Amino acid sequence: MSSHLASTTETQVIKIIGTDKEVVNELVAIEKALTVFINGKEFATMVCTPTQERELVIGFLCSEGIIEDPDQIKKITLDKREGLVWVETTVEQTLSEDLFLKRYLTSCCGKGKSAFYFANDARLAQKVESRHTITAQEVSHYINLLEDNSELFHLTGGVHGGALASQGSLDYCAVDIGRHNVLDKLYGHAFLNGTDISQKVIVFSGRISSEILIKAAKMGCPILIGVSAPTDLALKLAEELGVTVLGFVRENRMNVYTHSERIIGCS
Amino acid sequence: MSSHLASTTETQVIKIIGTDKEVVNELVAIEKALTVFINGKEFATMVCTPTQERELVIGFLCSEGIIEDPDQIKKITLDKREGLVWVETTVEQTLSEDLFLKRYLTSCCGKGKSAFYFANDARLAQKVESRHTITAQEVSHYINLLEDNSELFHLTGGVHGGALASQGSLDYCAVDIGRHNVLDKLYGHAFLNGTDISQKVIVFSGRISSEILIKAAKMGCPILIGVSAPTDLALKLAEELGVTVLGFVRENRMNVYTHSERIIGCS
Repeated sequence: MSSHLASTTETQVIKIIGTDKEVVNELVAIEKALTVFINGKEFATMVCTPTQERELVIGFLCSEGIIEDPDQIKKITLDKREGLVWVETTVEQTLSEDLFLKRYLTSCCGKGKSAFYFANDARLAQKVESRHTITAQEVSHYINLLEDNSELFHLTGGVHGGALASQGSLDYCAVDIGRHNVLDKLYGHAFLNGTDISQKVIVFSGRISSEILIKAAKMGCPILIGVSAPTDLALKLAEELGVTVLGFVRENRMNVYTHSERIIGCS
Repeated sequence: MSSHLASTTETQVIKIIGTDKEVVNELVAIEKALTVFINGKEFATMVCTPTQERELVIGFLCSEGIIEDPDQIKKITLDKREGLVWVETTVEQTLSEDLFLKRYLTSCCGKGKSAFYFANDARLAQKVESRHTITAQEVSHYINLLEDNSELFHLTGGVHGGALASQGSLDYCAVDIGRHNVLDKLYGHAFLNGTDISQKVIVFSGRISSEILIKAAKMGCPILIGVSAPTDLALKLAEELGVTVLGFVRENRMNVYTHSERIIGCS
């Protein structure tokens, strides 16, 4: 059994219950980029909970068919702090390289606090400057509307839901079995319709991971409201990219994690 | 608002409650591969809920920085049935191709009912022949153990948990913010320790999508027990690959979706 303490970190959050608010520390899950090198060559970058990294990398390489026998592994070296794993194998790299994602942004790229792990994301996600603000009551209202709309979720338990919302109603809803796809559907709709996302909020049923946060920032959306939890990496990126993140929104309760200046009466 | 009916399908399931069982039809979420072509060239394959496909594809292309202005889109053509989208753009393809996943298995490859969407998966996932069997009581017991072990999940609400189990206990547990990573950690552990997975079950907190099912099959695991829902594509693959899938396991209730011959007294 792994230590769970290594997988969480404390973060400061403004907890709103009705008209009360207080600043408390809460645990959030750590999310970290891990880059795999095979025989010295950069191979792939994944984001993960930074525990059991050796098992993760070997399981990934087995699953991709790169390694088929434990004897093929000569050595596994982990730099836990930097999120790097080197695997030395006896196998020649036979699979075509373009099968794999290789988009790691090395720290020398110097984008802010370098929480980005893909160069393309650092290029495309700009700081959100919108002055759009909403009340805690609106936040609760949008989450209620999303729940009402999440028929498919309730029918099957198997999908995520999201919406673009403004002026008290949901403008466009999307459901998908993939968390990222929900955001892409919202993005595609807004793009095709010339929607000004700087005056919208995104309401989302799934966990707010770094990838979700980056997508919201790329869209230029100032406020991201989640039913579920954010990860620590998502919050670091949100801080840097100027996105207001709310999580665990239920009834009249919610956590405000970043850029609380957009929640009226909160900062 | 999209039609939700297009996103679900009925599947036959053996519902077990205590010592009772009945065969019923239940809705499961549809999961489908969608391959994107840009200016006639195959670009990427994703799995998704097959609604709002145009929005999904355009949002994905925006998010990846391929398209930056609606005027760059000349035409979008969707073959909904085959899961193919062609986008004609005015932009030259400037991004390096190896940034993207391009592993679509065309139907001519003829692997079974061709539910696979990546050629590499079809190569690596063999039919699971294990005769391992368990009782419904064991299924409930393993899920209870997983819940007890899911400290991090309860602390943060932000991660998935899974375990390899046998003979009434959990042999190895993994947690991760990524659903796939949980399976890879289990796989890596088993591989490094020479564990015979044909006599194990996997217990999993997250949704059983096609990717999770494929990973379990690659590991050679005969029984996959989930707290959550499976997708229709996962169930098609499970049928083909000989994997027993159980979902919605809670207390003494569970749904047996495929290969019920491994659940004692069930078939």
